[in-house]
Amino acid sequence: MQNPELFERWQQVRQRSVALAAPLSAEDCAAQSMPDASPVKWHLAHTSWFFETFILEQFEDGFQAFHSDFRVLFNSYYNGVGEKHPRPQRGLLTRPSLETVQAYRLNVDERMQRCYASKSDDLRLRQLLELGLQHEQQHQELMLTDIKHLLSCNPLHPALYAGPPQLDKPLAASHTLCWQDYEACLCEIGHNGKGFGFDNEGPRHRQFLEPYQLATRLVTNAEYLAFIEDGAYQNPALWLAEGWDWIRNNDLRHPLYWHYDHQQGWQEFGLHGLQPLLPDQAAGHLSFYEASAYAAWAGSRLPTEAEWENAAALHEQEGQLSQLFDYCWQWTSSSYSPYPGFAAATGAIGEYNGKFMVNQYVLRGSSSFTPAGHSRISYRNFFPATARWQLSGLRLARSLNEEEA
Amino acid sequence: MQNPELFERWQQVRQRSVALAAPLSAEDCAAQSMPDASPVKWHLAHTSWFFETFILEQFEDGFQAFHSDFRVLFNSYYNGVGEKHPRPQRGLLTRPSLETVQAYRLNVDERMQRCYASKSDDLRLRQLLELGLQHEQQHQELMLTDIKHLLSCNPLHPALYAGPPQLDKPLAASHTLCWQDYEACLCEIGHNGKGFGFDNEGPRHRQFLEPYQLATRLVTNAEYLAFIEDGAYQNPALWLAEGWDWIRNNDLRHPLYWHYDHQQGWQEFGLHGLQPLLPDQAAGHLSFYEASAYAAWAGSRLPTEAEWENAAALHEQEGQLSQLFDYCWQWTSSSYSPYPGFAAATGAIGEYNGKFMVNQYVLRGSSSFTPAGHSRISYRNFFPATARWQLSGLRLARSLNEEEA
Amino acid sequence: MQNPELFERWQQVRQRSVALAAPLSAEDCAAQSMPDASPVKWHLAHTSWFFETFILEQFEDGFQAFHSDFRVLFNSYYNGVGEKHPRPQRGLLTRPSLETVQAYRLNVDERMQRCYASKSDDLRLRQLLELGLQHEQQHQELMLTDIKHLLSCNPLHPALYAGPPQLDKPLAASHTLCWQDYEACLCEIGHNGKGFGFDNEGPRHRQFLEPYQLATRLVTNAEYLAFIEDGAYQNPALWLAEGWDWIRNNDLRHPLYWHYDHQQGWQEFGLHGLQPLLPDQAAGHLSFYEASAYAAWAGSRLPTEAEWENAAALHEQEGQLSQLFDYCWQWTSSSYSPYPGFAAATGAIGEYNGKFMVNQYVLRGSSSFTPAGHSRISYRNFFPATARWQLSGLRLARSLNEEEA
Amino acid sequence: MQNPELFERWQQVRQRSVALAAPLSAEDCAAQSMPDASPVKWHLAHTSWFFETFILEQFEDGFQAFHSDFRVLFNSYYNGVGEKHPRPQRGLLTRPSLETVQAYRLNVDERMQRCYASKSDDLRLRQLLELGLQHEQQHQELMLTDIKHLLSCNPLHPALYAGPPQLDKPLAASHTLCWQDYEACLCEIGHNGKGFGFDNEGPRHRQFLEPYQLATRLVTNAEYLAFIEDGAYQNPALWLAEGWDWIRNNDLRHPLYWHYDHQQGWQEFGLHGLQPLLPDQAAGHLSFYEASAYAAWAGSRLPTEAEWENAAALHEQEGQLSQLFDYCWQWTSSSYSPYPGFAAATGAIGEYNGKFMVNQYVLRGSSSFTPAGHSRISYRNFFPATARWQLSGLRLARSLNEEEA
Repeated sequence: MQNPELFERWQQVRQRSVALAAPLSAEDCAAQSMPDASPVKWHLAHTSWFFETFILEQFEDGFQAFHSDFRVLFNSYYNGVGEKHPRPQRGLLTRPSLETVQAYRLNVDERMQRCYASKSDDLRLRQLLELGLQHEQQHQELMLTDIKHLLSCNPLHPALYAGPPQLDKPLAASHTLCWQDYEACLCEIGHNGKGFGFDNEGPRHRQFLEPYQLATRLVTNAEYLAFIEDGAYQNPALWLAEGWDWIRNNDLRHPLYWHYDHQQGWQEFGLHGLQPLLPDQAAGHLSFYEASAYAAWAGSRLPTEAEWENAAALHEQEGQLSQLFDYCWQWTSSSYSPYPGFAAATGAIGEYNGKFMVNQYVLRGSSSFTPAGHSRISYRNFFPATARWQLSGLRLARSLNEEEA
Repeated sequence: MQNPELFERWQQVRQRSVALAAPLSAEDCAAQSMPDASPVKWHLAHTSWFFETFILEQFEDGFQAFHSDFRVLFNSYYNGVGEKHPRPQRGLLTRPSLETVQAYRLNVDERMQRCYASKSDDLRLRQLLELGLQHEQQHQELMLTDIKHLLSCNPLHPALYAGPPQLDKPLAASHTLCWQDYEACLCEIGHNGKGFGFDNEGPRHRQFLEPYQLATRLVTNAEYLAFIEDGAYQNPALWLAEGWDWIRNNDLRHPLYWHYDHQQGWQEFGLHGLQPLLPDQAAGHLSFYEASAYAAWAGSRLPTEAEWENAAALHEQEGQLSQLFDYCWQWTSSSYSPYPGFAAATGAIGEYNGKFMVNQYVLRGSSSFTPAGHSRISYRNFFPATARWQLSGLRLARSLNEEEA
Repeated sequence: MQNPELFERWQQVRQRSVALAAPLSAEDCAAQSMPDASPVKWHLAHTSWFFETFILEQFEDGFQAFHSDFRVLFNSYYNGVGEKHPRPQRGLLTRPSLETVQAYRLNVDERMQRCYASKSDDLRLRQLLELGLQHEQQHQELMLTDIKHLLSCNPLHPALYAGPPQLDKPLAASHTLCWQDYEACLCEIGHNGKGFGFDNEGPRHRQFLEPYQLATRLVTNAEYLAFIEDGAYQNPALWLAEGWDWIRNNDLRHPLYWHYDHQQGWQEFGLHGLQPLLPDQAAGHLSFYEASAYAAWAGSRLPTEAEWENAAALHEQEGQLSQLFDYCWQWTSSSYSPYPGFAAATGAIGEYNGKFMVNQYVLRGSSSFTPAGHSRISYRNFFPATARWQLSGLRLARSLNEEEA
Repeated sequence: MQNPELFERWQQVRQRSVALAAPLSAEDCAAQSMPDASPVKWHLAHTSWFFETFILEQFEDGFQAFHSDFRVLFNSYYNGVGEKHPRPQRGLLTRPSLETVQAYRLNVDERMQRCYASKSDDLRLRQLLELGLQHEQQHQELMLTDIKHLLSCNPLHPALYAGPPQLDKPLAASHTLCWQDYEACLCEIGHNGKGFGFDNEGPRHRQFLEPYQLATRLVTNAEYLAFIEDGAYQNPALWLAEGWDWIRNNDLRHPLYWHYDHQQGWQEFGLHGLQPLLPDQAAGHLSFYEASAYAAWAGSRLPTEAEWENAAALHEQEGQLSQLFDYCWQWTSSSYSPYPGFAAATGAIGEYNGKFMVNQYVLRGSSSFTPAGHSRISYRNFFPATARWQLSGLRLARSLNEEEA
């Protein structure tokens, strides 16, 4: 077997998906709280569908689908594969049951094992296995954000995990926010071809950066609270026009999971239920509009994705910045668009990234929900400006005059 | 214990609700397919909430709620009781679990038993017990219509019950449709005070009827198919203006659960999955608009509810008509409005019926989903003109000239 | 020429439409403030289209349309005539100009004159002429309600007519509201065949009425204000469920044209601009929901249309009631439905009334906007429960016990 | 008077607005065909409001508003100025009349003349005058696109101008499309400070460009028709996911103003009415989605705005490209975002551009509707990806490998 470590990693990822769902009931796994989110059961099935459709269908001898209807039912958005069950109706699929979906997973796992055992010398197979593994890791993060959103819709504020949060990442030290300077430079960004990267991370190419500064840490809950208490949600001057209309129309006054009551003060809902707001924690679940308004209020701006990546690359050599990864995804001011020379893969798999390159903004770094080992400095996450159910925060940036730099 | 038969009936009704849910998984019980429909779990909880809120809270010694939040969570529409969980979000309540709701039912059952054992001499308690029993029977019919709708949204067309339908009601004999004449008369309609009746069935009062005819049976699938095949869904002349706009905007071309494919021909989805359309069965799941258009096509009209009730009363004495009960609810042309002298009860329980008396149409009879013993000739069911997920069909009527009568 | 008085009346009605539009600019006549309302220019054209389509096309020798496209452009809702310009886009028809529409009117008038001169012995022609005359009178009322609505959307509160209102109808004497009793009776309602009546007013038929009372006058602004000040718009117990949702969703707190400001107090917008609210005037521009809630608050109910018509017939003989006509249309609790034996005319003209008999409520009487001579006691006006831009008020009713009566 | 040429230019611009409206009736000027478009009368008033609010209010001695309500009525989107009349209701403002708005224009013109005569040495005044002049030119283009859209909604297809179009710009020579190469370079883009530029055009800054090619002319109607005839509107593989959903949901099959009928073939609606489609004309009224899909079909992509501006700068020195200006605005792949170091002006005037920098795409060049002298190579026009009523077309681009370059 070629590259047995790859297959071992693959098995671990597959097992982790099941482990994430373990504390959830079949009911928890079946519900869908909004069209953007999917049921956990659907994630468990779709990630298996990915392997069955893109690997087994091509590489398995005597391929036979586990269930002929699953091709449609668990197709997310690949027009090249054919019909799709409508996304907003994923929560109505009480059949197949969670039990059947778990059986589907086991079946795919076994067939994949046999298939990889006999054909691991096929480079395309190994590439697709790696892609599917990365794909499943992405869905692991979505399983957490989606179940969090679902439980947040329940007025009982149910806790998925007992007790107060056991954060495996230490909280942001509430050190004074400092500014790190970066000189004007012609930098290279994009994936360098070593190890795995999604197609949207390349080609590696040159970008010129005017001098700029980045904050050495993320914006904290305490800082964001000061923004709220300064009347920011009532002040149109701080907001993009579209963002202002959006917060007015939806009557928004604070981040998605914040709650205020006169007795408890500010609390935040999470997988441990409703808990007191932690002032030093990186502010999360912000929309692009809120991140932009905060930056305007703070006399700053969001960084571009090239500024972020250039700084992250320097950080790898010299250290400087904190919280690049593992806390909150960091909104950038960069619209999600193709790098010069980008070309999507041919066939249905080419729909993975490229067709979403409009009206979305890039987030960099990773969050405490991101699986270990999944991120890297060239990684481009992306969501619409209204998205708040992702663990999205911000790091401030400022432009420098030539003389300041 | 006074009136032990009442309590025994009550226990049977309570058990039947659980029995109806028995073939369903926890996932099936939790999902909500549209705002009009509710999850089976919600029905199971709400019918228990009804007893806890309207009986135990008033009559139980040392009343203590099973769970303080359930008062809001399972309140359907009683503003007098306080806040309500929003109806369209009932399907997001993955907690409490089905198991907890079943424990809630058992808890309410035990407390009700103790309460009734000690206070059955209280007339108001007995009245509320009977009301709650009838209320639970109404929800039993909704459990069936709602789960049918949910499963119909699943492209797998899952069958709740195995095998072909074992109809406990014989199919409509496809006898030739006959017309029964009724002379002009001053009739009395409304509940006569003997036995249980909902407040909306009274007061009994006089109505004058001009001479009319009723069809001796309901419209069948075969007849409705002829209407379709005659181009009715493309012919505005047959439709109420609002109905025409509605079928155009929703691109409707046949009853809710009918499916056509070139190999199988016409099929109908039901609790036994997708089955061949039965030509002699009473056509069901029709909207008021479709029922009206069919009647127009057939040179007839819908009966008023007084015409229906007058005929049903005569039928009890003389026999005449078939399919008054047990097949399909029968749309009438009568808007749901208060009878002369109607006054809703005081307090929250007064919200049961009266506040819905606008923009709904009365259906008479009962359906094959209606619990045995639940219906009567004064019974007024009501739904908006667009409702199709109820088992609603039609019986034709015609006006007669004085000389014809 | 047969029936020259008919033709003379017709000419007067035609001239009045032009006179109503005289104080309006071309801009005023072209705009449409909501889909329910139409531009005055459209009314001027459509009422001419009616004669061109239903009379000239059939009776004119060598018929030639004034403009071939007008058949579609000014068709309101007659599917039998063919295509229709979409109603919500009537305000986009800046062409044809007001001037062209006025030329269209003159052209139709001349052709009608010639046609009538030569064919007035044709009964069907005379009937259609009368129908078109009545139709134009209906549109004259709509011209006033629609222009009032349009001007009300203008923050300048423009007055169509200068000075304070010169009411041609004296205000309701603020006499104490009295109750007139009516005994149980088998009455006849519906048009008796003498003189003109719309098809929906017949056939005349019998209805039995249980004993009831009617208020001798309409509800006044002062009374409606007391209802508001008693917190009615915040109290769900007074409202039909659908009405409560509707006022909440639209944040309604008073009748359509009422304005409150701290300096001026309550004012009402009308064709004379913003004027102080007149306490003794009949409250108008109420929805069916508001009328129903007011009645509930006052311990009363709305009358049925048969109760209203029976009382109006007695009034013609004995006098009793005030404000039956000329102040505000009076909501009844009767859903708009066909009388026993009703049959719409064949052909496109049969679409005039019958196809709207669903989800609308009947109003009786007439308003200060109704043309003189247009109303009668069998007249059935109808609008949806949400309609507020019509001059719709209410007269209270109560049921009596047999012994009270 | 300082800079009399400036004032003279200003007067010419003011007069041109009136001249553009001259062939329109008052009705034409008052209507609004969709929320994105405004009535011509509103444009005439708003452009005067701009001078009254931003210049006269500050610089005029004894300033008195022409009409106190106009401050709100004709405020487009400046929160810093205060309240605004809701944009979708601009078409309901039948008052003030067109005549009054023309009087308003004259009044502002006279006061501006007096004001400028006495204070032209004030630099800020001169800057605001220039800004207002440019602002009015922008609205002149919108007057044309908005009236075109309004007339296009009229089924009569009215022609604003008689006869076939007298194009003042020669049609695109249907020369074979050629590709112009550009080497990798560190270019400078943005306004260089000479002459007028909007704030969003600066600061001038450096961008690195990888090697690329641009088409020497715009895509023509004939080419776009080939795209349609190749089934592009039915092929999801060519479209951004959001664009595909959008064309499906709106059932789009061709550019906004194209019409097909079996007798006439393809026609295009314009200010001269419905005319045969001109094959060699630059394809216009395309959304960003359509432009992107066309580029994908053609094996190309849209240029970035920096690529466009770099090429345009080289063109000024060397010539190369055709149709940079005056035909159609050219969609770029660049999301509209602030240049490095961009800071909006303080005060309400700072809302001019910056707050719109999200979810819009940059268009470069100018169109046949753009006033003479209004455009330049650093000009950044911007619209949402769905906008089709602007005269927006496309120029193709391609990336080159280093070795190809």
